[in-house]
Amino acid sequence: MTDATPADLAGRPVRVGLDVGGTKIDAVAVAPSGEIVARRRRPTGWGDEAVVAGIVDAIADLAVDGGFAPTSVGTVGIGIPGLVDADTGRVLHAVNLGVESLDLAERTSAIIGAPVRVENDVKAAALGAAALRGITGSMAYLNLGTGVAAGIVVDGAIWRGARGTAGEVGHLSVDPNGRVCGCGQRGCIETFCGGGALARAWGRPGALPVRDILDAADAGDPAAAALRSDLFHGAAAAVRALVLSADVERVIIGGGLTALGDRLFGGVRSALRAGAEASPFMRSLHLDERIEMLSDGSPAAAFGAAIVGATTPVKEIVPHG
Amino acid sequence: MTDATPADLAGRPVRVGLDVGGTKIDAVAVAPSGEIVARRRRPTGWGDEAVVAGIVDAIADLAVDGGFAPTSVGTVGIGIPGLVDADTGRVLHAVNLGVESLDLAERTSAIIGAPVRVENDVKAAALGAAALRGITGSMAYLNLGTGVAAGIVVDGAIWRGARGTAGEVGHLSVDPNGRVCGCGQRGCIETFCGGGALARAWGRPGALPVRDILDAADAGDPAAAALRSDLFHGAAAAVRALVLSADVERVIIGGGLTALGDRLFGGVRSALRAGAEASPFMRSLHLDERIEMLSDGSPAAAFGAAIVGATTPVKEIVPHG
Repeated sequence: MTDATPADLAGRPVRVGLDVGGTKIDAVAVAPSGEIVARRRRPTGWGDEAVVAGIVDAIADLAVDGGFAPTSVGTVGIGIPGLVDADTGRVLHAVNLGVESLDLAERTSAIIGAPVRVENDVKAAALGAAALRGITGSMAYLNLGTGVAAGIVVDGAIWRGARGTAGEVGHLSVDPNGRVCGCGQRGCIETFCGGGALARAWGRPGALPVRDILDAADAGDPAAAALRSDLFHGAAAAVRALVLSADVERVIIGGGLTALGDRLFGGVRSALRAGAEASPFMRSLHLDERIEMLSDGSPAAAFGAAIVGATTPVKEIVPHG
Repeated sequence: MTDATPADLAGRPVRVGLDVGGTKIDAVAVAPSGEIVARRRRPTGWGDEAVVAGIVDAIADLAVDGGFAPTSVGTVGIGIPGLVDADTGRVLHAVNLGVESLDLAERTSAIIGAPVRVENDVKAAALGAAALRGITGSMAYLNLGTGVAAGIVVDGAIWRGARGTAGEVGHLSVDPNGRVCGCGQRGCIETFCGGGALARAWGRPGALPVRDILDAADAGDPAAAALRSDLFHGAAAAVRALVLSADVERVIIGGGLTALGDRLFGGVRSALRAGAEASPFMRSLHLDERIEMLSDGSPAAAFGAAIVGATTPVKEIVPHG
């Protein structure tokens, strides 16, 4: 289950990584030095054909921006939400993209003419965050977006666990009396700090509902203050769950809610400190010092996808015969 | 952090393992075949000298029972509660044993004349449970005793995590309005399914308070029924936390509460099934099929200690010079 060894890039030095999200594709081209030499974002289409076409077009755009020939793309990695079979590159149930079942690696590789590897978007982002932050031990990437999920990286490789649910802390219940989650349980961490759940609980129109919640809370709205508290405490609960189970050294927060900047990070850190106040055991863990946050617009997810693309699974490099 | 390679046992074939608990020492002698050839239980003493003497006496008793010379003991492993430095064999804060700081490996090795390795008792028990159950992938050992803690084993080695808190799910809060935990937090999993917390909440005298709770619940006592529900739901929450974070394939329940037998196991399984009823996502995890329970009086903890004793850490076998 561990990954290793870059592919042979002789003559095709560019590694491309794409983070395919519900609204946009973020694509980067990475030079052999590890430097991001081009980056392009474009809207994501709906359904199998549009997703494949968007990926192909994004790579063509990248080549123009980066001043390289499309034939110099050596490997392509794609991070995408949904259930991903990393061995075959097949994607299942990517509901936000209108994809039910798609042989994404095979379809795109046939058009691009380079090997394509596919990974769950949060796992790819975890790999990218670990690389960009230079973390060599263990870390979790906690994605706070519409939903909440984490990816775990140990010694530079994705920690998959037994059945692919490692890091799924968003669906741990932390309050038996909490809000009902989309998963059917009550009081899941995602109901506290997922952007979708917070927007539903807030129930007012607006392009950036979580920002609206924080603004209203600052203005003294008690309902908004309660949701703000939920956000911070939910994210703190996710950090605790990751450290008290998998015991990662660091937790890097990423995802759409990082657009809130220090309003988010400071709040989560304060919630961790408040928890440590009450408990010598929690205090001994120094959780407030073990979290970091990606900057808004970080290319971590696309960069991680590029690493996925350039990585050959161990089982494929075992000599045959 | 991984462990490997058995010690050279030529001429000293017996591996001894001891589980040193708050009330008793459970000691086993293991033949090179892996068979337990002798087992002895004796009371644990209080304080450094009594703990060391108890271990030495238990090994002497084992030799008599097993019909082997004390000089044929090749390795000794000790599982003990508290903070253990597995590299040096030093034990800190074993409060139930009256031990504040003890060089246990050095002290006992000098008397026994064989190398001694020391490990946290739950981690050692996890290793033993994995070996006795023949689990080769990933598993967690969930110890339900006075307190609640888990040890994680992956591919036959203890998963330590970054700072030794891997598997500490007992102190994840799952209810912000729950009982105050000894750790200072509120609603920790341990407050739901730890024998100590349940006994305090029950508040009536008795040698086996958790059994009394189940009996009273069966007889219709509503307070007891609520605590019984807490027990089952707390253990189910621990199983979920272990699978949704570290994603172990199996969870083996052990510890003193296994004396309750199927009253415990059936209750935990029912709680997992009830959770799955409400959630297609949880249902897809088949958690009720991924739990097992050790029999009451299982030698897993002592057997795991014997494995610890016979294992040389990787860093010590790296060639020098």
